[in-house]
Amino acid sequence: MERIRAHLAGLAGPFAGRDARAAARAIMTTDTVPKVAEAAVGAARVVGIAKGVGMIEPDMATLITLFVTDAEVPVGELDSRFRRVVDRTFNALSIDTDTSTSDTAAVMASGAAGPVDLDALERALHEVALSLTRQVARDGEGATKLLVVRVELARDEGQARRVAKAIVNSPLVKTAVHGADPNWGRVAMAVGKCSGETDVRQDDVVIRFGDQEVYPGPVDESGLAALTAYMKGDEVRIEVALHTGAAAFTVYGCDLSAGYVRINADYTT
Amino acid sequence: MERIRAHLAGLAGPFAGRDARAAARAIMTTDTVPKVAEAAVGAARVVGIAKGVGMIEPDMATLITLFVTDAEVPVGELDSRFRRVVDRTFNALSIDTDTSTSDTAAVMASGAAGPVDLDALERALHEVALSLTRQVARDGEGATKLLVVRVELARDEGQARRVAKAIVNSPLVKTAVHGADPNWGRVAMAVGKCSGETDVRQDDVVIRFGDQEVYPGPVDESGLAALTAYMKGDEVRIEVALHTGAAAFTVYGCDLSAGYVRINADYTT
Repeated sequence: MERIRAHLAGLAGPFAGRDARAAARAIMTTDTVPKVAEAAVGAARVVGIAKGVGMIEPDMATLITLFVTDAEVPVGELDSRFRRVVDRTFNALSIDTDTSTSDTAAVMASGAAGPVDLDALERALHEVALSLTRQVARDGEGATKLLVVRVELARDEGQARRVAKAIVNSPLVKTAVHGADPNWGRVAMAVGKCSGETDVRQDDVVIRFGDQEVYPGPVDESGLAALTAYMKGDEVRIEVALHTGAAAFTVYGCDLSAGYVRINADYTT
Repeated sequence: MERIRAHLAGLAGPFAGRDARAAARAIMTTDTVPKVAEAAVGAARVVGIAKGVGMIEPDMATLITLFVTDAEVPVGELDSRFRRVVDRTFNALSIDTDTSTSDTAAVMASGAAGPVDLDALERALHEVALSLTRQVARDGEGATKLLVVRVELARDEGQARRVAKAIVNSPLVKTAVHGADPNWGRVAMAVGKCSGETDVRQDDVVIRFGDQEVYPGPVDESGLAALTAYMKGDEVRIEVALHTGAAAFTVYGCDLSAGYVRINADYTT
């Protein structure tokens, strides 16, 4: 803790990239890489570090993230804007559905760089948080790919979030992504897992992998070739339009690999 | 379908073991073994076959099971007793949380052997259904172990079922079982996933692996040695007492292995 505190004191001063990286490294547990991101907001900067690779549900859990900025910002504004950012980034992340305690997202502002535009600050906080969220998902236990699931045209944000979480957490979707298989049937299955969403009609659902519509399709041969190439990349984006309304939500996760099993089956208490 | 029907006609007659096995083999998809069970009830018999290895939630899904008996039994009695049996066997089974359609459990009675005691018939149906449920769980995609989770001293059966399902479906519990690790912390974590069960207090929870209490414990050295040997067996039973009431429910599942990932990542549509 002393060591972390010393690093943070370093961060809050000159924001030296090396210090942020050292702090990010100091809080690593089974992370394979330190996670750091930063953004400028006027003359000020926002720097964030994070650690976490599993047990991220329901909200952050073993994920710990610390932000510092030298912007001058009223505490109430910093609190409410940071909470809004966290809800769309760290709270939209899932590795394996399992849960834990300890979730922490903290932000500290020194004021040294003077006042900044508050909307610009919120955008900078969001940029840093989103980068860290993607880094955590990509470094999920055993992960070989980042999986981004966006559900849109939903009745409300809650519906979009529930459906997106069902997709990103489905073992069969996660293994299909691992195997680079554009298996829209499994995505449709995961939508169907949300039995409470009685206003969702299968005939109205549209599913895309990247920019390619796969359902209702059809996908022609050149589309299939492009799709196969896309699925082999290290980031896969699945988009689902429900056509029950106008709300959207995006969640972040990863594929399910034999590496995940190895890490968690070999671990002994 | 003709082939299945012919086999069933064979079954309903002499109940020849070879015919039942042939029918069980005929309905296999990615099952690695045919699943057959039978039990006597007076002069009559009950024979059941099943197929299914994944996508079993929320209730049976891709699991298909067919029962025949030569007992004489009123249709209404057969229906209500079979439903009660199914609820505690096939509907208490989970492989990977993923879902599907097609779930079918059918029972046919020819009456050729005359009337039987109805409670004895229900016990025979239960014996056959439980055997098939355990066979399906053990043959789950990539499974190397049968995992049985019993939650007892619960407020009601619904609570026992929800908590048991959370445990049997937790990727971290499943990988711990795969690695033969008596990791009670992950079981406690899975109990904690059921955030709606606000009457469950961690201090009142008791966790056993097989006959060995592991929480609150402590486990001494000879206990630990016995536990380690137990976890290496091909069936692991986890028992959790909640102390919120007197109800109980048992669910059936399997471990999570690299084989599961391989089967589902290599599959291509």
